[in-house]
Amino acid sequence: MASARKLTRPAGREATGRFLAEGPQAVREALQRALTTVPGSVYEFFGTEGALARYADLPAMAAAAGVRVTVVSQQAAAALSETVTPQGIVAVCSRLDVGLPAVLAQPPALVVVLAEIRDPGNAGTVLRTADAVGAGAVVFAGDSVDPYNGKCVRASAGSLFHLPVVCGMAVSAAIAALRDAGLQILAADSAGLAELEELSAAGRLARPTAWVFGNEAHGLPESVAGSADERVAIAMPGNAESLNLAAAAAICLYASSRARLQAADRTERGRQC
Amino acid sequence: MASARKLTRPAGREATGRFLAEGPQAVREALQRALTTVPGSVYEFFGTEGALARYADLPAMAAAAGVRVTVVSQQAAAALSETVTPQGIVAVCSRLDVGLPAVLAQPPALVVVLAEIRDPGNAGTVLRTADAVGAGAVVFAGDSVDPYNGKCVRASAGSLFHLPVVCGMAVSAAIAALRDAGLQILAADSAGLAELEELSAAGRLARPTAWVFGNEAHGLPESVAGSADERVAIAMPGNAESLNLAAAAAICLYASSRARLQAADRTERGRQC
Repeated sequence: MASARKLTRPAGREATGRFLAEGPQAVREALQRALTTVPGSVYEFFGTEGALARYADLPAMAAAAGVRVTVVSQQAAAALSETVTPQGIVAVCSRLDVGLPAVLAQPPALVVVLAEIRDPGNAGTVLRTADAVGAGAVVFAGDSVDPYNGKCVRASAGSLFHLPVVCGMAVSAAIAALRDAGLQILAADSAGLAELEELSAAGRLARPTAWVFGNEAHGLPESVAGSADERVAIAMPGNAESLNLAAAAAICLYASSRARLQAADRTERGRQC
Repeated sequence: MASARKLTRPAGREATGRFLAEGPQAVREALQRALTTVPGSVYEFFGTEGALARYADLPAMAAAAGVRVTVVSQQAAAALSETVTPQGIVAVCSRLDVGLPAVLAQPPALVVVLAEIRDPGNAGTVLRTADAVGAGAVVFAGDSVDPYNGKCVRASAGSLFHLPVVCGMAVSAAIAALRDAGLQILAADSAGLAELEELSAAGRLARPTAWVFGNEAHGLPESVAGSADERVAIAMPGNAESLNLAAAAAICLYASSRARLQAADRTERGRQC
């Protein structure tokens, strides 16, 4: 329990290669991973009596995966939580990030690069959106927030367990590797000259793409935005100066996903003719 | 100072009709409002020495608006903050919500209805997105979070001051009034049969529209979703069960905004021929 509590801090996660998955959704995904693809990837499971009764499938999954279940007080569960409303259920998991070369062995059609993203809620929300649109990986590049931060894990709503996550690369190195793998680099940049809908209308979004999103306050540094194939702005007829980062990412990633689906539809119709 | 601190709680805001705008962006918008459209709408302005020096335009604006500036300690500023990283600058403002009939006197082409949204960060982010795409109002309906909650104000990044906000209506009453005003009602519903892109391709999104978004955990109740003209799903080829509410709203609102811009373009081209 004391060793698990250390995982609420970056140093504790760094030293052990472990992190905490909190809440029924994340714990279910973690146990699913332990039961299927990565045996032994959940070390321990803590739950309050109430939470274990409410989510009775979880202790059953833990038993099937050979994971010890420890009943804890609400106070103890809260001490393992990094969120304001603890859900009384926490699993200790092994890190799951992979190297970018492994991801690029079979280059995905859509990758997300987070460049110096600081807010864990934003990062987790982008991870969830990337998962929803079928992206092949999310790269937490440069000095971005730790994907294993409790708030990020929670905001990802289980998606952290669904698609490859890459950590610890410089933004420029990640971009170079993605370009080498044949992906176009699109930088989300409110000062960009290319407009999202124009790229979409020109058929550019159906190509294999890495979207790069910058810091919440400062956006992308010139060195990064300037190295992209396009600096892409989202048309905003209203008064807001900018969009929230996760909202902007949702619009861009959905546009790419839609373009790919439409291109696939056309190919399909072409075959039928 | 003590009376300002009470505004961090719903009861204090309710009793006084005042709320706290925190951070340079929100305070600037509040002072702008006091200087232009609503004289007297900022009652007091608190700042730490450091923050007042960093954002020197703000005490100048306050002076021009006849608002008293009080220098406070970092601790006192933090006590007025509902966020984890206080920015040392807070204004006491008058509520600014309006009645829906006033909004509908000239029906806007795009309105957002938040139905039982509980997370202030989500609500503020949707407000910011609605502002960015040029929506005409945001209705905080049913038991939704208070738009004057500090986290919501901060997440709106100033947008709370840009477009009309409506509070305190039942969801069904808001929908009925919006429909009477000629707006189609589109309910965001992951179980919906209409797909966003199909509506877009059919030209349906260019019509005057009220988008209704439901609770983060439970979505929209059947009574609300069933009363909409369409229940609209967002195609998700990936693995996530659902999108974050603010991400889904960004995709839907951007799609409507794009459809209106394209329809306006076509009308313009029609005139030129």
